[in-house]
Amino acid sequence: MIIVLKQSAGENGLNRVVEHIEKEGLSTHISQGTEVTIVGVVGDKSRLDIDRLKASPFVERVIAVTESYKLANHKFHPEPTSFKVKNTSIGPDNLTVMAGPCAVESLEQMLTIARAVKKSGATILRGGAYKPRTSPYSFQGLEEDGLKYLKAASDETGLATICEVTSAHAIESAVKYVDMLQVGARNMQNFELLKEIGKSSLPVLLKRGMSATIDEWLNAAEYIMSEGNTNIALCERGIRTFETSTRNTLDLSAVLVLKEKTHLPVIVDPSHATGVRNYVTPLSKAAVACGADGLMIEVHNDPEHALSDGPQSLTFDQFDEAMEALAPYAKLSGRG
Amino acid sequence: MIIVLKQSAGENGLNRVVEHIEKEGLSTHISQGTEVTIVGVVGDKSRLDIDRLKASPFVERVIAVTESYKLANHKFHPEPTSFKVKNTSIGPDNLTVMAGPCAVESLEQMLTIARAVKKSGATILRGGAYKPRTSPYSFQGLEEDGLKYLKAASDETGLATICEVTSAHAIESAVKYVDMLQVGARNMQNFELLKEIGKSSLPVLLKRGMSATIDEWLNAAEYIMSEGNTNIALCERGIRTFETSTRNTLDLSAVLVLKEKTHLPVIVDPSHATGVRNYVTPLSKAAVACGADGLMIEVHNDPEHALSDGPQSLTFDQFDEAMEALAPYAKLSGRG
Amino acid sequence: MIIVLKQSAGENGLNRVVEHIEKEGLSTHISQGTEVTIVGVVGDKSRLDIDRLKASPFVERVIAVTESYKLANHKFHPEPTSFKVKNTSIGPDNLTVMAGPCAVESLEQMLTIARAVKKSGATILRGGAYKPRTSPYSFQGLEEDGLKYLKAASDETGLATICEVTSAHAIESAVKYVDMLQVGARNMQNFELLKEIGKSSLPVLLKRGMSATIDEWLNAAEYIMSEGNTNIALCERGIRTFETSTRNTLDLSAVLVLKEKTHLPVIVDPSHATGVRNYVTPLSKAAVACGADGLMIEVHNDPEHALSDGPQSLTFDQFDEAMEALAPYAKLSGRG
Amino acid sequence: MIIVLKQSAGENGLNRVVEHIEKEGLSTHISQGTEVTIVGVVGDKSRLDIDRLKASPFVERVIAVTESYKLANHKFHPEPTSFKVKNTSIGPDNLTVMAGPCAVESLEQMLTIARAVKKSGATILRGGAYKPRTSPYSFQGLEEDGLKYLKAASDETGLATICEVTSAHAIESAVKYVDMLQVGARNMQNFELLKEIGKSSLPVLLKRGMSATIDEWLNAAEYIMSEGNTNIALCERGIRTFETSTRNTLDLSAVLVLKEKTHLPVIVDPSHATGVRNYVTPLSKAAVACGADGLMIEVHNDPEHALSDGPQSLTFDQFDEAMEALAPYAKLSGRG
Repeated sequence: MIIVLKQSAGENGLNRVVEHIEKEGLSTHISQGTEVTIVGVVGDKSRLDIDRLKASPFVERVIAVTESYKLANHKFHPEPTSFKVKNTSIGPDNLTVMAGPCAVESLEQMLTIARAVKKSGATILRGGAYKPRTSPYSFQGLEEDGLKYLKAASDETGLATICEVTSAHAIESAVKYVDMLQVGARNMQNFELLKEIGKSSLPVLLKRGMSATIDEWLNAAEYIMSEGNTNIALCERGIRTFETSTRNTLDLSAVLVLKEKTHLPVIVDPSHATGVRNYVTPLSKAAVACGADGLMIEVHNDPEHALSDGPQSLTFDQFDEAMEALAPYAKLSGRG
Repeated sequence: MIIVLKQSAGENGLNRVVEHIEKEGLSTHISQGTEVTIVGVVGDKSRLDIDRLKASPFVERVIAVTESYKLANHKFHPEPTSFKVKNTSIGPDNLTVMAGPCAVESLEQMLTIARAVKKSGATILRGGAYKPRTSPYSFQGLEEDGLKYLKAASDETGLATICEVTSAHAIESAVKYVDMLQVGARNMQNFELLKEIGKSSLPVLLKRGMSATIDEWLNAAEYIMSEGNTNIALCERGIRTFETSTRNTLDLSAVLVLKEKTHLPVIVDPSHATGVRNYVTPLSKAAVACGADGLMIEVHNDPEHALSDGPQSLTFDQFDEAMEALAPYAKLSGRG
Repeated sequence: MIIVLKQSAGENGLNRVVEHIEKEGLSTHISQGTEVTIVGVVGDKSRLDIDRLKASPFVERVIAVTESYKLANHKFHPEPTSFKVKNTSIGPDNLTVMAGPCAVESLEQMLTIARAVKKSGATILRGGAYKPRTSPYSFQGLEEDGLKYLKAASDETGLATICEVTSAHAIESAVKYVDMLQVGARNMQNFELLKEIGKSSLPVLLKRGMSATIDEWLNAAEYIMSEGNTNIALCERGIRTFETSTRNTLDLSAVLVLKEKTHLPVIVDPSHATGVRNYVTPLSKAAVACGADGLMIEVHNDPEHALSDGPQSLTFDQFDEAMEALAPYAKLSGRG
Repeated sequence: MIIVLKQSAGENGLNRVVEHIEKEGLSTHISQGTEVTIVGVVGDKSRLDIDRLKASPFVERVIAVTESYKLANHKFHPEPTSFKVKNTSIGPDNLTVMAGPCAVESLEQMLTIARAVKKSGATILRGGAYKPRTSPYSFQGLEEDGLKYLKAASDETGLATICEVTSAHAIESAVKYVDMLQVGARNMQNFELLKEIGKSSLPVLLKRGMSATIDEWLNAAEYIMSEGNTNIALCERGIRTFETSTRNTLDLSAVLVLKEKTHLPVIVDPSHATGVRNYVTPLSKAAVACGADGLMIEVHNDPEHALSDGPQSLTFDQFDEAMEALAPYAKLSGRG
């Protein structure tokens, strides 16, 4: 941690700041420049409250040099993480494809979709049973019934399943039926939910918040991990920017930043990021080309009549073509 | 609702779209331009699924003309809303000032602060007992103990109190001790929490999400209102932009947009928006000058030693000066 | 300047970096923490190339502690700047109001508007003769004829005049007719234009780029100042964000940040920032309340038939009411 | 064009608006809904001033349905554009790689780099002679000398060359020495510069402005094209967002949006977008995978001692490896 003092701090201010730090058992290095004085802090900074320092009348800026997340940090965990989800695994050795509808609509629908996406090569079946929708008057999901349909589809096809959870109550139900839990973008900083999920033993897909920095995202993962659950995959799904041609702006550089900062696997969701069917396959290729460990793709038996997010869903044929087109990219990135 | 057809839709596409709409009991107006064909929809659009329409191979764009929120909508509720919070009220006739520390730290602290802010003219005492913090290793709040200290401070001073809630469990506790509930920015689209709060009878302060559009914000209010609780004030607290000189960018135009779109009162929080103590008073004046119904200001007995968000807290003297400086602005805006 | 070394840098990396710095005649302070090693640089950093340091295989981060702008910097020029524009002045002692149409349309129009805005209390007449428009097919301005009409209106009324310039050629013409030059948002980093303007002797209004940080903005001012022209006012006109309810998001906190960082006067333009007529007066009050030195307001004799930006223009009556409403705010901020 | 009337407009407002449109020789379709009245405009809308309509007291919103750019529009030019640059071409049939240093530093340097990048497979040599830098005190380029060194490198190696131009004066010099002109991000809406470039006969690389929408970008291309120069390639180089882990956020979805909206070729610059050397190769693969027509990559003989933008430059070895790694991706996208 680096503390830049105000020009007005003077000898007295410097002494006060140093005293404050040493009282916490840490040591300091002072660097007196021609224009500014800088105090470097040496030792376990978790004992210092950064906000308290910033509030000092002598302090101009406090710059954190080390990250606040530890369990998710690549520095302390150099090997990439890999974990099982039912019969499949997420990690550096294969390309995970999660496919399925935005919302679970019926048993029939889930069986049909599960068979189709399995045939094309997906390994995890997705489907929302608890839908966070902007308006209270939009379709909110089938809840426990939806979970049952997912389970039935899994029982028949052998596919692993994933479902978003939005409350402690939903977690309780979901753990009975599905193989992986999803935290949606809107709940990325719903810390109560993260803690609850941290207590479950199912692997987790943590979507990036719409305007979350990568640092905040990794701290959100840390919330889950600090409760004991370390099987987490991070899912880039587009960030909010000024550009409105696509629903969000897919941030593929984030894949590379994450690969440097964390050992957790990274999934990319081009369907939600863009909201446009025609962009899903090319951006899936791009995601694999730059190192993603997997994809989340919306597939629907009848997109035109989907209850939620139809415009971005692939038909069965489109998904099949997409999987075929992706195969050489997976091979090129060593995930063949 | 306006539907712009693709050039390739042709006569057949037009018929299919019209058929789809009329099947829902709605009627259409067709406008055939030289370059595009447009279908206007007449009737109760809540019956149409906008996503389903967007998924049609014949549709290029769907433009919503009317808002999806109804209870929060100014059009259907022309009078500005005003409601009581203990002995005070929030609405067009007065300037509400909510003041207090970011986090409740001790009984002693709350009593000291409550006396000071009351003396300077605040009417609602704020203090966080459940703190959503970016890192799991930061101070998370005193929880129920914090609520008790708020209540004790209220009992002695007569001030109304407000506290952020972050879970169904926190609501349950909070309703026993405080007079108003706050939804924080990170939970603005935690729809499960909004529904729970909608079932309580306490007034609510709904903070704007860090990257929420005004439309999404009003839909979040609608979630609470649709459960029966209509005493909601909206709190602008800065949005996330590219500019890093201030923690967030305070969006004062939002006050004016809200005054047009909704009847709900609007509060401005310059402390969290900027994170800088010296900007709080001038931006408070600005907020009142452009029509805000109230302010939320962080005040601390000892900002340098605060457990949370010290750099933006005013001391007692600074708050007293701020209140004095604000008085003529309140008078000018008819809130004297 | 602070240099954070990579963990892998080791003793060798540290030596190489220190050597590099000392070769430039600067000295270093080394702070070896438990996790990172930090090198503080002491002396005249303008000799160091920050990009070159960043490119070193041993360096993780380089943090600039001092600003790159000098002439615009408050630290080296503690008194607020004030300068004359024809008969009026811009600075801490009065409230400058620049008013007029977005685009100059005719001599008749300019005379009519000039008389009206003068009567209501404006001191500078604005009007665009060179209009940077998104589409090449939109009205681009009357060019030199427009400048002549501005001059005629100034001659009759005594008002000072300001006009945007978009090329060296436009500067050449403008200096013959108007009293102040404006750099528009789109040209804030057109450094060739800034240098040309720096060579003229007319005062300058430098608008903030749509997505310019305050730091970049002050560096743009530095471009003009480093050529010898130091009479610059900065104009906040809204930044680009995700919010679309207003054309841009007016960043009033920027007024406060600028007041700390620079001695140059600050003008606020609520007309362009919001694009909505009804928001202009309340945001003007807000701007004055938080310390702006002046306002730029669009006024038109017939907004419904304006050739450019009509929706945000005030009518004469609206402008007159606005000026009356602003008077007590000007007085409160010591600009009465 | 669609005009949504205000609820308060009434019969009278409707008549006034319709009258206004018909006076311009256009016809209307009126759609009276239960909540709003909508006027569709049929005919050549370029005759209508959208701002004038928005200023009407009867109008709530004006929605443009067709694009304002014509020459750049895919609808009116269904074939993808391809053009020659010296001995090479940019278009759908090959993968163009522009490589070289951020800034031209010396003749020796340019010859060395040109030989190296040619050997690895680049077809166009880049190098900045006019550098737009944030601070006036940073290195600004060698100007005409830089152009000469580019030409010498081209003469020896046969590579085509590209150089950014920042003024009419720079264009004049550049056309004598290089094969392609570049408009930088900061000048994307420097319309005077665009018009000047439109009068030259050299092909143009138009970089996206830091916060330019795709629509504004295509309108900028239209400025150049409307002057007669239609050989334009668009270069995505990252947009400004809230995320600070990378210098900008590379928007690869833009490649797909552009491929739908325009016939012009699309180049991606991962070096400037991220500012991080290690991200350049993976994002280059991603760009090719999603359909880019080419790449712009910074290569330097000695990145640690580069005068500008060193941290993102590849060494010769790194560039050679990158080109080898890219080959199978080029083949997969039919550009082998």
